[in-house]
Amino acid sequence: MTTAPLSPGSVIGILGGGQLGRMLATAGAALGFDVHVYEPEPDCPASRVAARSFCAPWDDEGAVQAFAERCDAVTYEFENVPVATVGIAARVSHLRPGARSLELTQDRLVEKSFINEAGVATVPFAAVDDIQSLEAAIAQIGLPAVLKTRRFGYDGKGQAWIREPGDAAKAWQAIGEKPAILEGAAAFTRELSVVAARSVDGMVKAWPLGENIHGDGILKQTLAPATGVDAATQARALEIARAIGGGLQHVGVFAVELFDLGSGGLVVNEIAPRVHNTGHWTMDACGCGQFEQHMRAVAGWPLGDPSPHSACVMTNLIGEDANDWAALAADPQARLHLYGKRAVRAGRKMGHVNRLSPL
Amino acid sequence: MTTAPLSPGSVIGILGGGQLGRMLATAGAALGFDVHVYEPEPDCPASRVAARSFCAPWDDEGAVQAFAERCDAVTYEFENVPVATVGIAARVSHLRPGARSLELTQDRLVEKSFINEAGVATVPFAAVDDIQSLEAAIAQIGLPAVLKTRRFGYDGKGQAWIREPGDAAKAWQAIGEKPAILEGAAAFTRELSVVAARSVDGMVKAWPLGENIHGDGILKQTLAPATGVDAATQARALEIARAIGGGLQHVGVFAVELFDLGSGGLVVNEIAPRVHNTGHWTMDACGCGQFEQHMRAVAGWPLGDPSPHSACVMTNLIGEDANDWAALAADPQARLHLYGKRAVRAGRKMGHVNRLSPL
Repeated sequence: MTTAPLSPGSVIGILGGGQLGRMLATAGAALGFDVHVYEPEPDCPASRVAARSFCAPWDDEGAVQAFAERCDAVTYEFENVPVATVGIAARVSHLRPGARSLELTQDRLVEKSFINEAGVATVPFAAVDDIQSLEAAIAQIGLPAVLKTRRFGYDGKGQAWIREPGDAAKAWQAIGEKPAILEGAAAFTRELSVVAARSVDGMVKAWPLGENIHGDGILKQTLAPATGVDAATQARALEIARAIGGGLQHVGVFAVELFDLGSGGLVVNEIAPRVHNTGHWTMDACGCGQFEQHMRAVAGWPLGDPSPHSACVMTNLIGEDANDWAALAADPQARLHLYGKRAVRAGRKMGHVNRLSPL
Repeated sequence: MTTAPLSPGSVIGILGGGQLGRMLATAGAALGFDVHVYEPEPDCPASRVAARSFCAPWDDEGAVQAFAERCDAVTYEFENVPVATVGIAARVSHLRPGARSLELTQDRLVEKSFINEAGVATVPFAAVDDIQSLEAAIAQIGLPAVLKTRRFGYDGKGQAWIREPGDAAKAWQAIGEKPAILEGAAAFTRELSVVAARSVDGMVKAWPLGENIHGDGILKQTLAPATGVDAATQARALEIARAIGGGLQHVGVFAVELFDLGSGGLVVNEIAPRVHNTGHWTMDACGCGQFEQHMRAVAGWPLGDPSPHSACVMTNLIGEDANDWAALAADPQARLHLYGKRAVRAGRKMGHVNRLSPL
């Protein structure tokens, strides 16, 4: 396998067929690539914009291999693709990003340890394997603190807050008594994120910091570029992105969620080794958006220019929000993105709207 | 069939699977639609970004009907789709734009007569059916003049210039002795085009005029917004778009190629009843680009905001130009669009590049 840039007409495979895969697929097509999608769920959003789609379980080794053998490079849109699955792809194609980016981010304990080793601060944390180690962790970290399963949590699932010592047993039950991590509460003023990309040759480019507004554990809005960010803080965010992207030997886009401690300090909350909801603003407001940038990196191309031409408020359309499509279609300020999901369900990300304004 | 706006998840069918169909398909997907493509050529560019593609001849009535029956609305990306083909679609689905837009633009004589009847100036023209009527037309219009087949010409094909009376027989042979039109030469300073959209309810919105640079009969560049256009000329372009769009009862995007006579006068060269190469700049430089706008109109949605946020130079990648993809990928100013065509051929449109600058 060569590491030369993939020529147009090459096939890029995406493991995972949700909205991120869908937006990656259309961005890849704009650069002249054929995009294939592998997803266990039938009729997934990305399959309907892909040159070819494969519907089989993650653990169907033959299907994964048949998919990957047709691809000049393989990427993933979803951090919970099994490491064994990407391992098959890595043997027969270029896997970008590599398995390391998954291994180090699928487990919150491994992830936070990696971040600290990369020289970047996190909130205090401790491993929890049973009620005894939970009590020891509370004694070490203090309360309030949040107990999270080490694996497979997202959008607030698999988490329980502990505000007083008496909550410990209930929290341990609430997360299903699974291997966990206890995290101290950060005294943060707001949540920021830096979305960045790293190329095959190690170049890192970041978009300006965005400010994220959550509700019910789900991202509601990103305001970008975040206001009140001085040059030193933006520079520190880029340093963090370089340290983490380099430490992962990542190729492609990744996102780092940050707590802004107010006095200029930033601590990392978590890493997403993929394009990210907090980067959706970039697709309409920047020279090169996150989906194109990721496909450039996966293809071994030089990174595009992430500079914004506009400021943006990105608003997620969650569950029944998507039923407002007619009003949104009539709003000349709303750049509407709908994901083609067949059914509206509470808490499901159905689309998003970008509203631009002059920088 | 209702004329209510199509809800997300509806199926929009595109007759024609070239680069215009490809860019329409991805724009439709971004709005949450499933896009089906019908194209006689196998492995066409649009098929690789479509939810479903149908490969059959234009005159396969059963295939056209089976395609259209699955669609909540049908459009076309190519003005030479047979009127009989779109007629089948119109019987079982919403056809947008309608057959009238094709009927009035597939034949240059019918088209120019329609334009004049809509109150808009063209160059002088006359019908040519044989060498005798060609000589009469030369006597009426004067020389130089250009002889064009009435049907199926594009990118300079099916055309021959007549500079002196002795060229007439050779020109008649050059165009294959087919029914033709002789057009007088316009004393124009430049070629402009207005790209506009008309909604189901008759609203017309236009992008600013672009200036078009041709070479070898093929569009090379569009500079937009065109420089040196005063408010009166831009207003006249919008009037022309309204007269033509309304006269066609068009639904969707259309383009009007114009000769700028220099003193503020505009005469129409020709109409394209579809998204158009001279509108490619809008996809990166405007609030709503031509591909999204067309899909909005086809869906019966309100039109988006065509206002540009940037100026743009659009450069076509023709034939071997596309071999420069690596240099273009490395140019941070170049927004690269490649069409996924399998083979480079001389004169073939392989992609385009948009370069933005502040307005």
